[in-house]
Amino acid sequence: MIISMKIGATQEEINHVCERLGDFGYKAHPIFGEERVVIGAVGHGEHKQQAMESIEAAPGVESVVSISQPFKFVSKEFRQKSVVKVNGWEIGGPEFIVIAGPCSVESEEQILATAESVKRSGAHILRGGAFKPRTSPYDFQGLEAEGLKLLLKAKEKTGLAICTEVMSTEDVDLVAECSDILQVGARNMQNFNLLKRLGKTSRPIMLKRGLSSTIKEFLLSAEYIVTSGNPNVFLCERGIRTFETYTRNTLDLSAIPVLEELTHLPIIVDPSHGTGKRSLVPAMARASVAAGADGLMIEVHPNPEKALSDGPQSLRLTQFEQLMKDLRPYIDLWKADRAAAQATVLVGKA
Amino acid sequence: MIISMKIGATQEEINHVCERLGDFGYKAHPIFGEERVVIGAVGHGEHKQQAMESIEAAPGVESVVSISQPFKFVSKEFRQKSVVKVNGWEIGGPEFIVIAGPCSVESEEQILATAESVKRSGAHILRGGAFKPRTSPYDFQGLEAEGLKLLLKAKEKTGLAICTEVMSTEDVDLVAECSDILQVGARNMQNFNLLKRLGKTSRPIMLKRGLSSTIKEFLLSAEYIVTSGNPNVFLCERGIRTFETYTRNTLDLSAIPVLEELTHLPIIVDPSHGTGKRSLVPAMARASVAAGADGLMIEVHPNPEKALSDGPQSLRLTQFEQLMKDLRPYIDLWKADRAAAQATVLVGKA
Amino acid sequence: MIISMKIGATQEEINHVCERLGDFGYKAHPIFGEERVVIGAVGHGEHKQQAMESIEAAPGVESVVSISQPFKFVSKEFRQKSVVKVNGWEIGGPEFIVIAGPCSVESEEQILATAESVKRSGAHILRGGAFKPRTSPYDFQGLEAEGLKLLLKAKEKTGLAICTEVMSTEDVDLVAECSDILQVGARNMQNFNLLKRLGKTSRPIMLKRGLSSTIKEFLLSAEYIVTSGNPNVFLCERGIRTFETYTRNTLDLSAIPVLEELTHLPIIVDPSHGTGKRSLVPAMARASVAAGADGLMIEVHPNPEKALSDGPQSLRLTQFEQLMKDLRPYIDLWKADRAAAQATVLVGKA
Amino acid sequence: MIISMKIGATQEEINHVCERLGDFGYKAHPIFGEERVVIGAVGHGEHKQQAMESIEAAPGVESVVSISQPFKFVSKEFRQKSVVKVNGWEIGGPEFIVIAGPCSVESEEQILATAESVKRSGAHILRGGAFKPRTSPYDFQGLEAEGLKLLLKAKEKTGLAICTEVMSTEDVDLVAECSDILQVGARNMQNFNLLKRLGKTSRPIMLKRGLSSTIKEFLLSAEYIVTSGNPNVFLCERGIRTFETYTRNTLDLSAIPVLEELTHLPIIVDPSHGTGKRSLVPAMARASVAAGADGLMIEVHPNPEKALSDGPQSLRLTQFEQLMKDLRPYIDLWKADRAAAQATVLVGKA
Repeated sequence: MIISMKIGATQEEINHVCERLGDFGYKAHPIFGEERVVIGAVGHGEHKQQAMESIEAAPGVESVVSISQPFKFVSKEFRQKSVVKVNGWEIGGPEFIVIAGPCSVESEEQILATAESVKRSGAHILRGGAFKPRTSPYDFQGLEAEGLKLLLKAKEKTGLAICTEVMSTEDVDLVAECSDILQVGARNMQNFNLLKRLGKTSRPIMLKRGLSSTIKEFLLSAEYIVTSGNPNVFLCERGIRTFETYTRNTLDLSAIPVLEELTHLPIIVDPSHGTGKRSLVPAMARASVAAGADGLMIEVHPNPEKALSDGPQSLRLTQFEQLMKDLRPYIDLWKADRAAAQATVLVGKA
Repeated sequence: MIISMKIGATQEEINHVCERLGDFGYKAHPIFGEERVVIGAVGHGEHKQQAMESIEAAPGVESVVSISQPFKFVSKEFRQKSVVKVNGWEIGGPEFIVIAGPCSVESEEQILATAESVKRSGAHILRGGAFKPRTSPYDFQGLEAEGLKLLLKAKEKTGLAICTEVMSTEDVDLVAECSDILQVGARNMQNFNLLKRLGKTSRPIMLKRGLSSTIKEFLLSAEYIVTSGNPNVFLCERGIRTFETYTRNTLDLSAIPVLEELTHLPIIVDPSHGTGKRSLVPAMARASVAAGADGLMIEVHPNPEKALSDGPQSLRLTQFEQLMKDLRPYIDLWKADRAAAQATVLVGKA
Repeated sequence: MIISMKIGATQEEINHVCERLGDFGYKAHPIFGEERVVIGAVGHGEHKQQAMESIEAAPGVESVVSISQPFKFVSKEFRQKSVVKVNGWEIGGPEFIVIAGPCSVESEEQILATAESVKRSGAHILRGGAFKPRTSPYDFQGLEAEGLKLLLKAKEKTGLAICTEVMSTEDVDLVAECSDILQVGARNMQNFNLLKRLGKTSRPIMLKRGLSSTIKEFLLSAEYIVTSGNPNVFLCERGIRTFETYTRNTLDLSAIPVLEELTHLPIIVDPSHGTGKRSLVPAMARASVAAGADGLMIEVHPNPEKALSDGPQSLRLTQFEQLMKDLRPYIDLWKADRAAAQATVLVGKA
Repeated sequence: MIISMKIGATQEEINHVCERLGDFGYKAHPIFGEERVVIGAVGHGEHKQQAMESIEAAPGVESVVSISQPFKFVSKEFRQKSVVKVNGWEIGGPEFIVIAGPCSVESEEQILATAESVKRSGAHILRGGAFKPRTSPYDFQGLEAEGLKLLLKAKEKTGLAICTEVMSTEDVDLVAECSDILQVGARNMQNFNLLKRLGKTSRPIMLKRGLSSTIKEFLLSAEYIVTSGNPNVFLCERGIRTFETYTRNTLDLSAIPVLEELTHLPIIVDPSHGTGKRSLVPAMARASVAAGADGLMIEVHPNPEKALSDGPQSLRLTQFEQLMKDLRPYIDLWKADRAAAQATVLVGKA
């Protein structure tokens, strides 16, 4: 870390900071500039955040800046690329993975009709919410355990793996029994008790980016799960909150190459929540493929008008079918790029 | 609600929307404009959000706008002003309430020294975190149950009521046993399971505004607690996330008069998290009093440099003492305003 | 527009609003709901914004919402798709247009080397700043008139059309003499005097989205130019300001399909400013093509390390060459989509 | 500045960065950490921003961070506190200054009535827009030269100094003839040509913060004016753009103590634009005084409902009168604080 002292900081203050750095296990390298003193701290302290805050609180200190990434096990420096296996598919592997289904599980008829249709259209995994985080207590809160049963039925019928949200530590076991992927919703990205608890399962976890989370915070939340014992984590960009009101969120597609630089975890995109409008989903789905995402999550409903949640952003079954057709040539280019990249890696190793 | 049809929407589409409104229990009033048709929907449908989304998903619909507030029990229309009683004090009453203490409970010595000092300086309630939500898994996570015991000791010694955070449904009973106020942190403002569970206690709840929560979402989260059975809720503005990086958050003091217009719940301000910098706390504390908040929450530490969390934004004991002295004349003006407002209400009723 | 009266608004207040609506040329349709009264206003008032604000300021009014778009000549309702012709190329036409070049014109050698190289790589238009808007007065401010001369030389040598920024009404004539496209920078998107002045030229205008501009404001700025007399306007999405600090801005690619829905003006994307990092440009360029943009603007420099501005986001000449090769299959898909869309339109007309 | 090299950067890359730093006039101090190399750069290079970008663009560089403020003449290190004199009043001096008046000058009757009333209520300076920056070309654009004449009449009648906006370099002379203070609006905060031109006048300049400007950018814009020759600058916080939609902007009152730490320039607050709602203005005005602002700018209109702009946020004449009465005790506390601070400074000098 780099400590910038205030202009006019005394020698005593500088010495004090150097001593404190020593207490935390860092070696101090003061640089005496014309205007002020800057201290470089080298080493691996145990409690880096605490050390930074402590030093920042010392007299004569202007600011403290970290120069290393705060995450370890999810970082690119730890591994090049990881793959999350689900029901025979590999997220982060050579196939572009599509998760599709309704926002909420509403009835047996609804979920079965959707599952069969999205499978025919080429989806790999079925999504559907049983436990629903809703902004208002007056909105539909999900079918809960009953919804999980309906998802299992859909799995039996179609063979599709299941992805559904878990909202509370108390429900982890129940949801893990039924679902192939446990989803952490945007509003729970910093529910640290839930993250730690999910580290105790071995189920794949899909972690959605929080509404106002930086990339760094996003990766630290993934780090919570991984350091708690579960390395099967993949990420989902689903839009961030900005001043723009025409779209529900602002889909941050630059997160794809940014995460590609920083982490080995796979990353998929949810253009349905990312835009909030059905008409915008196809263009953002194509762009996600082209930007190099590992997959997509798309909301689909047999009758969006009768949906109990998120109707305006859900594709009809035929629209999803059309989308999958339209994505085909983009996914072909994606596969060629992947294969070429893989070949380069192999050549590099040879 | 108001439905704006697309330009060129057909009569069939308009009829369909009117029928759907009827299904949801609304009476439709179409207005035929020169450019497009607008439909006013009158009534109290059961599932308003669902109705809105359903209508928005119908063919020919451009947009749907709500004209009534989505919250009921926390609204100004339900009650003028409520008071939350804590240990003999009234938040929202005729006294300006100050909650003070360290970010985290770290040791018996630390919490007792802080408690005694802030009491002498005029604080009414002691804060201190036992369960800590930290962005990184490598940061200090709190003393947990041990921390709660230390808070109880501080209460015995000083008589100050206790305010501490609860992060998980599983910890609610434990924390409720020890603490006079249960705090919901910003990152848990939309942890709906936790909110519902807190509705089952009778303890006062302090709900902090989420980092990127609108006022409307803030009040809907309060509505979750109240509709679940616990009316003892007060709100805490603690800064929102913006593009500005000089401060940790942007303290939104306009939330005070806005909430005063919309809700009967008391509202306090946390300028420590709101700014992230000790030097900015006094000015923002004065401004909060002047803007009409019901109280303040201030982070105080006997030795901020040795704090295990939030040192840079914590006041030293003597700085807090000075702040309380400096606030005195502003609080006197505040009391006079409150008394005058109260007198007006009484005259109005007479 | 729709006027929502406060709960408990008096009949007198309602009548007053209806009268005021009449004054502004609207016909009032009050709807008496169970909770409150809502008034629909039908017609085309002259000063809509003023009418809305006036009504909002009247006693008993809760809120006023517009139901029609505030822009006319740039709207989709005015025309389906427009094309801006530049030096034989058509922006918004059947070719995907690439504008490339350095952030600033720095020397004859630099601009000629860049121009020749980007032309060989397939760029259609040369960019280069002569007048530079810089955050700090201590930064390089551009070569000004001398820079324009160098751009003309580059045009002579390569035949590439020129795109350069104009910052002030006083420079419009000078820049219009030399440049084929006049660029309005993000910081000047709401410099209304400049917009009006550009409406008096016939040169194509590239209008960049402001750092915190909504789509609606973006289109209203375009409307300023068009209503002032110049219909040759195209738009450029270049990233908006959010809380994320890893990227310079957050590139809002959903703006592409949104603008496609709202306006007939062509839209290009600038992933260099949109991300601020060279390594992120290729992925965002591919995504822009896939999302359906009409073109790209890319910063390229023969030696980014020696660039007087924006080095970190500029591609080297060879990197740009590689990017153009990599984009080729995506642009082929883009062309096929365009041709198919065009065929559909023709069939529709036949 | 501090350069953080990538993990695994080669010795050659490190040497290259050190050489480049030398080219720009900096002395390099590399620190060899366990994980990576960090280089401290000491000295005062001529083109710091360019040097930073150049180094950031070099191979092996991870990031470059500045450790000194980019502004000089407006910084606290240059001077403690400056005062802007206007018509016998001192902004930044011992009096709390109130600027009041309508958004736009609309008619002789309107501006005279307002001027006389706000003067009686205690305002020091009259505001009123003659040139109006409006989001839509269909909105009222101001009376322009005719408006300036009406402001002069109001000055003659009441003796109040005038504050009005200048939008374009071409209008600077005309506006400077009539107005005691030239206002730079939020949308022009980074209209650098205008800022440079205003540096050539000697008139006091009120610089409003841009809608999405950081504090640093705000001060760099002030630096443009000062380095161009005009030191008579004061700042105006008027709200920033965030995700919250209940208020027109989010008034950032923490900007007051932040600017107090960073600059000697006076700072006033505009709670009318900052909130966009008349009902919120009084609380935010009180808070501004308590936070230590040097003054306020308040929109007042004899008949807000008939206002041609900003009616919803304008106080009626009697409301402004009441506000000034209500502010009195807060201003008295403010004056006592100022006098005490002044006394401390004098004692320090003695």
